[in-house]
Order: sequence, then C-alpha cells, then structure tokens
Amino acid sequence: MIAAESLKSRIAREFGTPSLVIDLDVVERNIARTQALCEAAGLANRPHIKTHKIPALARLQRDAGARGIVCQKVGEAESMADGGLDDILISYNILGEEKVARLGALLRRVTLTVAADNPTTVAGLPPAGLAAGRDLAVVVECDTGRERAGVETPAEAVALARDIAARPGLRFAGFMFYPPEGEKDHTQRFLDEAVAGVRAAGLEPEIISSGGTPNLMHLGLVQGFTEHRAGTSIYNDRMMMAAGFATLADCALTVYTTVVSRAGPERGILDAGSKTLTSDIGGLDGYGLIVEHPQARIAKFAEEHGFLDLAACNDRPKVGDVVRVVPNHVCPVVNLQDRVVAVRGEEIVGEMEVAARGMVR
Amino acid sequence: MIAAESLKSRIAREFGTPSLVIDLDVVERNIARTQALCEAAGLANRPHIKTHKIPALARLQRDAGARGIVCQKVGEAESMADGGLDDILISYNILGEEKVARLGALLRRVTLTVAADNPTTVAGLPPAGLAAGRDLAVVVECDTGRERAGVETPAEAVALARDIAARPGLRFAGFMFYPPEGEKDHTQRFLDEAVAGVRAAGLEPEIISSGGTPNLMHLGLVQGFTEHRAGTSIYNDRMMMAAGFATLADCALTVYTTVVSRAGPERGILDAGSKTLTSDIGGLDGYGLIVEHPQARIAKFAEEHGFLDLAACNDRPKVGDVVRVVPNHVCPVVNLQDRVVAVRGEEIVGEMEVAARGMVR
Repeated sequence: MIAAESLKSRIAREFGTPSLVIDLDVVERNIARTQALCEAAGLANRPHIKTHKIPALARLQRDAGARGIVCQKVGEAESMADGGLDDILISYNILGEEKVARLGALLRRVTLTVAADNPTTVAGLPPAGLAAGRDLAVVVECDTGRERAGVETPAEAVALARDIAARPGLRFAGFMFYPPEGEKDHTQRFLDEAVAGVRAAGLEPEIISSGGTPNLMHLGLVQGFTEHRAGTSIYNDRMMMAAGFATLADCALTVYTTVVSRAGPERGILDAGSKTLTSDIGGLDGYGLIVEHPQARIAKFAEEHGFLDLAACNDRPKVGDVVRVVPNHVCPVVNLQDRVVAVRGEEIVGEMEVAARGMVR
Repeated sequence: MIAAESLKSRIAREFGTPSLVIDLDVVERNIARTQALCEAAGLANRPHIKTHKIPALARLQRDAGARGIVCQKVGEAESMADGGLDDILISYNILGEEKVARLGALLRRVTLTVAADNPTTVAGLPPAGLAAGRDLAVVVECDTGRERAGVETPAEAVALARDIAARPGLRFAGFMFYPPEGEKDHTQRFLDEAVAGVRAAGLEPEIISSGGTPNLMHLGLVQGFTEHRAGTSIYNDRMMMAAGFATLADCALTVYTTVVSRAGPERGILDAGSKTLTSDIGGLDGYGLIVEHPQARIAKFAEEHGFLDLAACNDRPKVGDVVRVVPNHVCPVVNLQDRVVAVRGEEIVGEMEVAARGMVR
C-alpha cells in the first residue's frame, strides 16, 4: 500500500514554493462569521476587498449577505466591477483628471460612492457625475484618532457635506469613520454632532460607515453606524491572532515555503523573503508564524531569503522541508502574487487569480 | 504663449499616481559606471536583475560589457532567457523536483550556473543536467559574515565542491561570496583556503564571484575574485545614498505620488503606502526622500496611505500636489509594479514591462 502524498508535497510539486494557499472551508467560515457579527449588531456588512483582491471571493461575500464592497483604489473597483460586483465604496480621496474620468466611466456601470476629506478633492469630483449622467455619491471621511485621512472636527464634516450637496454632479451620501480599535467616546460625540449638523442643513446621511477587523469585536459600542467595513477577517493573520480576533484555525491563508539552507546549527533560510512575506512586521516579534515550528523565529528578511533563528527550537526543520507560514499581515502578502492556490482540507481545488493585485492607481 | 506642461503633470494625467518613473539617461550612466568600476578592477561584471526585472535593461547591461547576469529565482531566469539573455547565474539553492525540472529545461536554452551550500541541494540537482544532456554548472555559496546562506568553512566548501564534481550531470564551477561591505581579512583567508583545497583535489574554480552594490566601492580589497554581482546600482535608492555610493542625481527611479489629504497642519497623506513603497525601512529614518520637500518625513504607512510628518517643513505640499519620492529600497518597490514609465529628462519615452515582477518561484 502506498501512503497518500501529503498536501505540502503536492503543492510543492505542482506549484512550487513559495506559494500562497487558501483553505476555502476556512474562508467560507470566516465570511459567515463576519456576516453574522454585522447582522447581530444590526449593521450592513461591506467587506473590504483589499485583503483578497479576488472577484469570486467578493461574490461569495455578497452571496452571504454583504450589502456591497469597499475598495481603496479606482483600479480595484474597476477590477471588481469587471467581476460582476456592484455597490462599491471607494474609501479614498480621488484626485486628478485621469482618475476622475475613470470614476465617471465606472459610475455608468455600478452604484458608486467615494470618500473625501477636503474641498480640493470635492471640487475635482463633479465631472465624474456629469459625465455619467447621474450623481456621484460622496461620503465625508472623518478622523477620530488615527490621524490618517479624515476631517478632524464635526464642523469641518458638516461644511464639507454642504459643499458636496451644493455641487451639480455630486450627492452627499453620509460619513465614513475608521475609529481606533474599541474607541467610543470621541467617535460617538463626533458622529452625533456631524449628523445633527447636516440635518440642520437639511441633509440626511444614508451611510454612516465604520470599519476595521478588530472593531468587529466592538460592534454596537458606538451608536448610529449603518454599516461596517472589514477586510482582513476573510483570511485573518498573525496580527489578528495577536489582537484576539482569530485563532490559528481561523487563518485561511498560509505561505508554503521551503527550507533551502541550514548553514548553522541554530539558523536556517526559507525561500520566502521580503518579496513574498513583506517587511510589514505589524508590531509583532518576528515576521510570521511557522505552523510546524512555532518556536522558530523569522528574524529578518533579504528579498528572497527568510532568516530563521532556531535557537529556541527542539525540533528543527531540515533542508528541503516544506513549512507553512502564517504571515504577520496578510494583505500586502496577497498583493505580491498573481494567483493563490485554493484547497479544501487536503484536497487541491485549483488556482484563483488575484485580479486586483497591484492595483494601486 | 502657453507654458509647457510639466513632466509631473503629464505623468499624472497619462498614467495616474502612484507611478514608478525611471530616467533612462541616469540608468545608462549608472550602467556605464558599474561596468567601468568592474573593468578598472579587472573583474567581469555580472549585474543582478532582481532590481529592475526588465529584459531590455539587462540587454543594455550586456551591451555595455557585462559578462552575464545573475538572478535569485528560476522564474526570473526563465523571464530573462525569454528576453534574449544568456550566461545566467542563479545565486540560490534550488530544491524540489518542480524547480529542478525547470532548471533542466532552461539549461537546454542558455548557459546556466546555480549556487548550492549543502549536500541536499547538490543531491537534487543532477536530473537537470541529465535531462539537458549537458552538465549543470554549480558554484559553492560561501558565507563570510552575513549568516544568510553559504557554507561556513573552507573545509565544507571543498567537500561540497568534490561532491558536485563527483556527480554525473553536474560540474563544479567555482565559489560564490557575498562579503559584508568592505570586509577583507576573513573573506581573503576563506577564499585562499577554499581555492587551495579544491586545487589539491584536482579541481579548478573558473568563477569566484563577489557581490553587492556598496562593495563596488571596495573592489580589489579581496584578491582572487573573477566577477562582481551588483543589482541596485542600476537605479540606486536612499539606502545607496546613505551608504555613500550614490547622490540624489544618481537615483534613476522615483515614485510619482499625489498628496491626497492634509487633514492636520503638520501632516499629510500620500497616495503611495506600503503596497507601493513597501515597509522596507533599511535602517533609515522615514520611508523615502521627497525630492521637493526633503524636510518632510514619511513617518509610516498604511497599505495605500503614506503618512507625512511636515513639522520640520517650511514649504508644505498641498492637496493635489504631485511629488517625487526616492524609495529607501528600490528593489521590492519595483517588484510591485507591472510597468515603469521611462523618461529622458522632461520627455516621456514610454512604458516598460517589469517582466519578472513577482517571480519568486
């Protein structure tokens, strides 16, 4: 009797390493979990496709009950529209005639909303709506602590809402937040004041959007949101494990990588470096969790070398071993690959194209 | 009279931001400089294509006098062979039947050398040479301080050379080093002992390879090398500026990016985040140099947001401004893009495909 060839051996033989592998059983469980969390809180679910960048997975999210999707960049939205998705929020200030023209073309095809946090962005957007023959919906991006994008005060939010509403080709659609994890008081005050302010001006926010995978643990903390945007929760990663949102069993994506050198007794080299696992350390110790050798530390990277510190490992991998790595931050790792290999348990389903990979424009 | 539209404005309008732009005048000057440095030291030049991943640029390097090229991964080598390049060194332990079969196919097409630092790798390679009907050349990778891959002692190097030479389908071709920048004594001793050892065994190293762009400043320090491998010197970056190898005028690649938010007086957001500029900080302060605002600090990244700290800036960029960023580490930045825009001074030449982008297998 011949022993069944292991999945790791088959992945290495058919696709080579390093390869990104997603388990569709876990993906589907994660999609259902996010949907259930949103529904339990009375919120629409608007998953962020930046994590997976695969239209077929966005369709699974939609079919599970998601209201629409969210993208960061116009190119991602175009790719998703090509893949049959609709009701797309681009959670980003879109500037420049090249991009605004593309927004106009996209608005002819799908229900589209964009974010803005400043008058320059707002002033540039009307040609999209005018070209499409229907208003472009715009939400005001509001900052309540991350100091990324977003107006800093409710008064600015209201002023920008009025600016949007006054412009032919645009429609004020609401507010977009991305609160620090678990933050309540400042966000609640900001939201209440902004909503009261626009209502006083005769405007009604249809969408009040919040976001973040760790904030799925705090839904309902702030009152008044209508929807939630989470990206990472479809795959999860070592950062989500550290945040207490996911366990190892919830991590749908692992990087299959080969140990290619063991030149010292306490060190080794993986064939996955910063061009595969990225230098996103995410505040953790080491650059990934090796499932088979959790005491091994991925100490640093060259572009195609992952440096293993095996000092704390009793059972050390040998040259030629294929191991599975849960990346610290899965989103930029996915963005480096044209395809991921989809499996269900020990069965290989096939490859899926990461259609929106590299769509930073 | 209408003022000529600036290059930045044309790039943004035709290609959008963020876009990678290379100045071919600087590229050609950098290629010539690397070639001249190698020739002055009596070394063959074997540029590393990991930086640019564009066959047309590798052909420019070859036409300027390079002996051959070096790649890290089999996929990069396949891509370069498709682009007409020959004499390829893959500076990496190649393991697994999938990759060894591809080596065999490649060996039928081009002169090919691979590196190995352990007996498991060597034992797996013969099918490539046997399938191709000619021996696969193998160099022994030697470590003299980086603790990456590479045997740690001359005795191991000699033993591995004999192992290679004894296997049908393989040919011992020499040694490959990657000395720490400017290191002399240990590398010289290692090299001398390894060469004496293989000669005593009746073997002759044709290739004794060194590498690294900063080591172009130290050619000739160690005696006995036959060739030098440098990658970054074709483009240069902020790390090469910090290393004293390049000035700003030597940096051929900049990322054109738009300021999309200025929500606070001392901060701003670029439309280039870690999915464009990568989290490779390379030991520097901040994640890139903004040519127009050298006192601005790219303090951190989200995936599509570059966080600007403008506290030290007198002249602060405004929303909609297009600025040029010299990345800290250019190689992984290039690896995220399908194309770069080629210019000469103020003239747009066209787009070039990054053919070997993402070729990590």
